[in-house]
Amino acid sequence: MRAHEAGALHGNDAAPTWLPYPADVNTLIDGLWSRGTARAADGAVEVAGVDVRRIAEEVGTPAFVLDEDDFRHRARAFRDAFGEAFRDHAGADVYYAGKAFLCGAVARWVEEDGLGLDVCTGGELAVALRAGFPAERIALHGNNKSDAEIRRALEAGVGRIVIDSLGEIDRVDAIAQQLDLRASVMLRVTTGVEAHTHEFIATAHEDQKFGLSLTAGDAFEAVRRTLSASRLDLVGLHSHIGSQIFDTGGFEVAARRILRLVAQVRDELGYTIDQLDLGGGFGVMYNTQHTPQTPEVLAAGIAEIVVRQSRELELEVPHLSFEPGRAIAGPSTQTLYTVGTIKDVRLGGPHHRLYVSVDGGMSDNVRTALYDADYSCLLSGRVSEAAPEVVRVVGKHCESGDIVVKDEYLPGDVRPGDLVSVPVTGAYCYSLASNYNHVPRPPVVAVKDGEIRTLIRRETEEDLLGLDVG
Amino acid sequence: MRAHEAGALHGNDAAPTWLPYPADVNTLIDGLWSRGTARAADGAVEVAGVDVRRIAEEVGTPAFVLDEDDFRHRARAFRDAFGEAFRDHAGADVYYAGKAFLCGAVARWVEEDGLGLDVCTGGELAVALRAGFPAERIALHGNNKSDAEIRRALEAGVGRIVIDSLGEIDRVDAIAQQLDLRASVMLRVTTGVEAHTHEFIATAHEDQKFGLSLTAGDAFEAVRRTLSASRLDLVGLHSHIGSQIFDTGGFEVAARRILRLVAQVRDELGYTIDQLDLGGGFGVMYNTQHTPQTPEVLAAGIAEIVVRQSRELELEVPHLSFEPGRAIAGPSTQTLYTVGTIKDVRLGGPHHRLYVSVDGGMSDNVRTALYDADYSCLLSGRVSEAAPEVVRVVGKHCESGDIVVKDEYLPGDVRPGDLVSVPVTGAYCYSLASNYNHVPRPPVVAVKDGEIRTLIRRETEEDLLGLDVG
Repeated sequence: MRAHEAGALHGNDAAPTWLPYPADVNTLIDGLWSRGTARAADGAVEVAGVDVRRIAEEVGTPAFVLDEDDFRHRARAFRDAFGEAFRDHAGADVYYAGKAFLCGAVARWVEEDGLGLDVCTGGELAVALRAGFPAERIALHGNNKSDAEIRRALEAGVGRIVIDSLGEIDRVDAIAQQLDLRASVMLRVTTGVEAHTHEFIATAHEDQKFGLSLTAGDAFEAVRRTLSASRLDLVGLHSHIGSQIFDTGGFEVAARRILRLVAQVRDELGYTIDQLDLGGGFGVMYNTQHTPQTPEVLAAGIAEIVVRQSRELELEVPHLSFEPGRAIAGPSTQTLYTVGTIKDVRLGGPHHRLYVSVDGGMSDNVRTALYDADYSCLLSGRVSEAAPEVVRVVGKHCESGDIVVKDEYLPGDVRPGDLVSVPVTGAYCYSLASNYNHVPRPPVVAVKDGEIRTLIRRETEEDLLGLDVG
Repeated sequence: MRAHEAGALHGNDAAPTWLPYPADVNTLIDGLWSRGTARAADGAVEVAGVDVRRIAEEVGTPAFVLDEDDFRHRARAFRDAFGEAFRDHAGADVYYAGKAFLCGAVARWVEEDGLGLDVCTGGELAVALRAGFPAERIALHGNNKSDAEIRRALEAGVGRIVIDSLGEIDRVDAIAQQLDLRASVMLRVTTGVEAHTHEFIATAHEDQKFGLSLTAGDAFEAVRRTLSASRLDLVGLHSHIGSQIFDTGGFEVAARRILRLVAQVRDELGYTIDQLDLGGGFGVMYNTQHTPQTPEVLAAGIAEIVVRQSRELELEVPHLSFEPGRAIAGPSTQTLYTVGTIKDVRLGGPHHRLYVSVDGGMSDNVRTALYDADYSCLLSGRVSEAAPEVVRVVGKHCESGDIVVKDEYLPGDVRPGDLVSVPVTGAYCYSLASNYNHVPRPPVVAVKDGEIRTLIRRETEEDLLGLDVG
């Protein structure tokens, strides 16, 4: 048991040190909830004017509730912030990273809001094309693209293919040759920088599957080969340094290393690389431990770095692009659950913990188990005057690691039938969802101006059994 | 870098200490592969007489290849071993834990082979009933069963519902009352024992979502309430101590604690509990670190424990049941992948690692990322005389943690288009599969006597897009 000031005050406190005893357990903590989330007059949570009780009644629980205006506001905020920061140079584009969460409606919003779209498989490309997303604003990623995926992307006319290995240069070139067209490509460079949370590591080696190593010379060799390939147009270089990044320290090192490569290419090959994609990975607030910066602060900080370093190397500031996914989709969405079983478990000494079981779990949010992620939650169908208790929100799966929220305070009178909302589940929750224990996947509904619209419908038992043909 | 004898010999060795440099990298290591797996005359791997190249051609890759005879042999081995070990007492039944892997064909095999079936959701129950599995041999588990699931189970006439909390006693009783029938129930007891790999922890407290605490008195209270409920028949007590268990030490402690409760119930309530379910969790061999025992050795060891402890407490030896899932399904299946990109990554110093990308990944096997599991693999479409190299087998997903096999040796000439097999993927791989990056889930095919039969068909892009209605 950790020493904890609130623990001494509140007796049975099993909370981790980062989790303060709440002054008011009914508060919607600033930054954790989508813009349209508020307490209605009677205390229930509403999103974009829609009461969560109405959502539960109309579409059932669990359900992903996406605040459409919030999603689009964040998309436009990134577009504007980076555009503004590089306005006096060659400009900057923002690509939404579809892997975070993608469906037809999201592709259309992103299109309308003037962003590009990252896809990394044929399946994601199919969603984008089906939604009418303009191919020239699509980038295809992937460490192991199949020939079929490359062919499909080239036939559709995607704006760029981000080449990830030396072998892929010849493959894309050959497929472009077969199709009698030219392929616009970027080269993904591994800079050896790894950023996550509030730290980054500027490692010398690069023990991961992505990209072309700078230090080993693969990146320079890839530029050389791409320039001499018959059907490839080198658009620029790409770097992605990690996820849940809260400051620009990692970008400082990565940008310096990649700009040095640009200078080397200029000096040794006489070719000017005039576009850089510095990837995404901008962090979000899952709980009070996280302090994300605004798009404006991030963009200004990165622009300062890129402009200064370009000058030092006597390079024109290249055109930039960035790929936020989590930072757009994540905070837009909350998962709405209904509470079932509640169990008060003694932890030894005076400590105990309420295990609050909900009607979903690791099938709709595997991030807690997969990344040891700390989520938050709130009693959302009502307010309560009961004293806060330390809870662990768990799912209904037959596995002890089936945990949704490891540590949180909820009102001590939380009871079966209550609605609980888990915020910031818009990224990498639905996209990683499974049918573990044959649990159908929840729907994703968009709320806007008091209306509910189903983006992805709830799976049915028939959907699940439909693949079982043996 | 770890000190490693083979490393010194083989220069660029980045293997962990547990992974020996192979004498012959083409060897099918004993215990890792299903009974029907062998090298055909030309060196390719065949399963139940079916060449993996034929499987790849007919159903594509990735694919789960399930050796039907192997699965059924293991199911019958557990049935026979536990039946034999308790033959001179009240006998023992074996329930296959469907959460490991369940489809209609599996339910039918398990039924024909005389085992019971554990389900833990309405979805798993639906699969079983649709396959014609006799309801009286089904047990319904779950820490957070919905009223609908309880009702459906009672209407179907399942053999027992394993009650997991005090609140559930009243709920099952009330639903049985509504349906005007009686419910046979077991009570899941948390003994405070946690077993995994080669260790167990006999903790005093029980910080998890499952079961009724022995130490807190909940378990005894649950027996008392169940006996006084109007519509409940108490079948027995249930305990499950963990997973990947390789010895019987944890069962020694758990059985003693649960038998003491049986004695307490006899002494204080005058009621004889004559059935115990000691759960499952029997370990399998994912790599050479694991040394599972045979069902016969496990059964004999547990029988010795239960018989001795029953005598000490002057109890009749109860009827036992056990719930293997992984140990039946896991080793029956291998995942067949096709190699795409190969990348030689320098790790610093003389060390390097081949990153071998395959056409699946964390969408079809999340266990490596989720549990830090160590899998093995083999070049299965051919043999090779090339010197072994340390490889990491990674998937095609847009995430650096997308790793299938962290550490393995493959022939150094592994190349795009090669088939690679990962053994022991029959449990918790398909059942946890996702559509991450909109990758369709692979098929599960059974092979037997030279024939291929599709149990679960491959998902199509249409399947994936079918839920996207917004």
